[in-house]
Amino acid sequence: MPTPSELSRAETWRLLLLVGAGLSVLVNTFQGDGAPLIASAALASISFAVAFSMIRWLGPVFIKAGLKGKDMAKPRKPEIPETMGAVCAVVYLISMIVFIPFAFYKDIVAATSGGGNRDVVIGDPHVETGRFLHRFPHGKLALYLSGLLSLQSVVILGIGDDLLDIRWRHKVLIPAFASIPMLIVYFVDFGVTHVVVPVPLQPYIGAFIDLGWLYYVYMAAVAIFCPNAINMLAGINGIEVAQSLVIAILLLFNDALYLAPFTPYPHPATDSHLFSIYFLLPFIGVSAALLCHNWYPSKVFVGDTYCYFAGMVFAVVGILGHFSKTLLLLFVPQIFNFLYSTPQLFHIIPCPRHRLPRFQPSTGLLDTSMTEWTVPPSPLIATGLDLLHTLRLIRIVKNQEGQIVESTNLTILNLWLVWMGPMREDRLAWHMVGVQILCGLFGLFVRHRLALLVFNVDNRTFESVV
Amino acid sequence: MPTPSELSRAETWRLLLLVGAGLSVLVNTFQGDGAPLIASAALASISFAVAFSMIRWLGPVFIKAGLKGKDMAKPRKPEIPETMGAVCAVVYLISMIVFIPFAFYKDIVAATSGGGNRDVVIGDPHVETGRFLHRFPHGKLALYLSGLLSLQSVVILGIGDDLLDIRWRHKVLIPAFASIPMLIVYFVDFGVTHVVVPVPLQPYIGAFIDLGWLYYVYMAAVAIFCPNAINMLAGINGIEVAQSLVIAILLLFNDALYLAPFTPYPHPATDSHLFSIYFLLPFIGVSAALLCHNWYPSKVFVGDTYCYFAGMVFAVVGILGHFSKTLLLLFVPQIFNFLYSTPQLFHIIPCPRHRLPRFQPSTGLLDTSMTEWTVPPSPLIATGLDLLHTLRLIRIVKNQEGQIVESTNLTILNLWLVWMGPMREDRLAWHMVGVQILCGLFGLFVRHRLALLVFNVDNRTFESVV
Repeated sequence: MPTPSELSRAETWRLLLLVGAGLSVLVNTFQGDGAPLIASAALASISFAVAFSMIRWLGPVFIKAGLKGKDMAKPRKPEIPETMGAVCAVVYLISMIVFIPFAFYKDIVAATSGGGNRDVVIGDPHVETGRFLHRFPHGKLALYLSGLLSLQSVVILGIGDDLLDIRWRHKVLIPAFASIPMLIVYFVDFGVTHVVVPVPLQPYIGAFIDLGWLYYVYMAAVAIFCPNAINMLAGINGIEVAQSLVIAILLLFNDALYLAPFTPYPHPATDSHLFSIYFLLPFIGVSAALLCHNWYPSKVFVGDTYCYFAGMVFAVVGILGHFSKTLLLLFVPQIFNFLYSTPQLFHIIPCPRHRLPRFQPSTGLLDTSMTEWTVPPSPLIATGLDLLHTLRLIRIVKNQEGQIVESTNLTILNLWLVWMGPMREDRLAWHMVGVQILCGLFGLFVRHRLALLVFNVDNRTFESVV
Repeated sequence: MPTPSELSRAETWRLLLLVGAGLSVLVNTFQGDGAPLIASAALASISFAVAFSMIRWLGPVFIKAGLKGKDMAKPRKPEIPETMGAVCAVVYLISMIVFIPFAFYKDIVAATSGGGNRDVVIGDPHVETGRFLHRFPHGKLALYLSGLLSLQSVVILGIGDDLLDIRWRHKVLIPAFASIPMLIVYFVDFGVTHVVVPVPLQPYIGAFIDLGWLYYVYMAAVAIFCPNAINMLAGINGIEVAQSLVIAILLLFNDALYLAPFTPYPHPATDSHLFSIYFLLPFIGVSAALLCHNWYPSKVFVGDTYCYFAGMVFAVVGILGHFSKTLLLLFVPQIFNFLYSTPQLFHIIPCPRHRLPRFQPSTGLLDTSMTEWTVPPSPLIATGLDLLHTLRLIRIVKNQEGQIVESTNLTILNLWLVWMGPMREDRLAWHMVGVQILCGLFGLFVRHRLALLVFNVDNRTFESVV
């Protein structure tokens, strides 16, 4: 019998097989014309195997170092390793760094006359028009590296948060700091701040509008929102990783729509969607590995590091790939969760430190967690709460005098339990995965079909122009 | 009276003044033609102030998080915060990221026709010859970013080491992993692997030799050596930071020799030495701030993170600035310390976990620490040890049968104590600073004067050609 921190023999063989297959594909692509897409998929499978093993092996080391937490939604409240997202993130970053020659190798061969000075051989074919997305390889390399820098920054600050327990108000700004490298390189290297104006407004302000520095504020807002949104929709086994995996796979699906068999090549947006695929494939690899250990019943916790890291991966691909609006359409459950939480965030309703659903030891199910009103709410707020209770958007408990003494915490998880009644932890996680998939698919449908109502043309040139 | 984790009123005012001065200089350079050198110096002084305050403020937070250690060389063995190098490193990295627009802003204005497509306007003046050091701005940006990526990697892995207490054998390889981004971008973007052959060998193998992949092995070796060398010359208050500061200032001095008043402009190596200065100035800022807290008697420890981080800064500037041989000349005490340690590293002589000098409570001075021979050494090794004892390179203790039972640990600190006798901790640190300065100045003299014996010309074109 292997101990809990060892791989079983079957696991060892399967993972070795996966790594072997990945490595042989990798070596082959490097010898051929360096097909980066295949290399990226191979690296993703190797990352899965490495992350899977490392998370297993490092469990006792993390516990010894004090990186551990209690799982409150289990009868015995077992203590398990925490911050395992950091392991994922490190494996991901190494894999993204190893990938650099595969992504840019062909450009080197094409752009240099064999290792010499490459400034002289760049001709017109490299100067593309369209959406200014295909660029000189150096420019692409700098963007790629700036994305990595932002991800590394968020990992460093996330580990700091997990270790030092930073205050809520300061935490929110961690992704803002981490997005600085990406935004600065965008400014230095790219600097496109024009956006397409929706058709109904075009007669008034023209087809394009230059947002200038407001565009940087917008990008910073996206970068702050994504990581914090994932960090807020948390609290039950597997939910952080599962929602991230769903979003990543839907983004991958959206990217695939811009590749050769689905869209005529060369499409001006192909490169930026390839860029996105390169960032997403290894992310899916390491996240799947983490989910194996983090799904109900969890053997490890992911830590804030993972939430920031995952959100930042999405922000990087959305911003540098120029589809941040599409990205936000995939965050509908997170946006709802954020808006629904605002009364507690702004302390209109009392906000305890943890708002995760409450475990009922008698049934083994999760039920809504409540916030206590030590002072009864003002008449105005009480009326509002009564209304929301009637609309089944919260549940309130009153004392004999009719004063509100408890109301449910305002998270999407608690709301779901208000609607569906108590359920087991993994069932709730599955339901959330379902919600995320449905909302995401609807979002993509809106993006590619309904957007034609307000924009001239879907940028996939797939549908006929209206 | 301020508590130990607060700034005194005088400190607050001085630091605010420094930050204010730095900020106003910074704003001015950005409005003018963006003189990057002045901006870098301003950022360095701001970094000093921020790092100084953060280290003071975060002390209790670090201790609460378990990041603490005992100072064994003090009578009461006080417990003080550990891993403060991580704070330095984060401040440094943010300052280096903020610096990007200052370093590359002028290039943008020059290279684009005002925010448009810049591939078309690059003319011949940008294609320099010389040592292929001045390049397209994008290429320089990618190199700069790759240096930052390597530094961030070493910080992430260093924090992991400080937290998880990684084994000695694995630790050594941390800088190897961290150097991957730099080497890969060098490969993708630069790829110069030719080195100048010394004159006596030129008739046989030509003026240049292409080392090919061996050059990458060499660069990786430099990147592994520098961080570990600094990590090995450690163990007394302030020594890690003080030696790093000396090396950084000597490198800065060497870089300054290539700038305008000292060398005719434009010199082909000017750009790479500017690159080095940009990396060194903020490093000196944060290191000086750390030294204020870490000098005898220490209020904080620096942690392995600082040693790796400092060594990696040197590796980055030496490798990307193309003066790795000069760099190694400044590491003479570290190289000696490494070679002197080898018998213990390879377990020819027993090696305890810690080899730092021993505190004598009776006198308050430091004396040599000893390693015990539980089994007496073999006759061959005993003869060797006797010889070294006679040469005053170690000190041995024999029992009544004439068997060696103890010998001094093989570090440069212990050797110095063998030579000079017991001394107070800060005096030993000052002596080491002196050794470092003298060896470094001699190294630079060798570099710029004696190198003419084996190379045709000093690359400063400052002396007349032999």
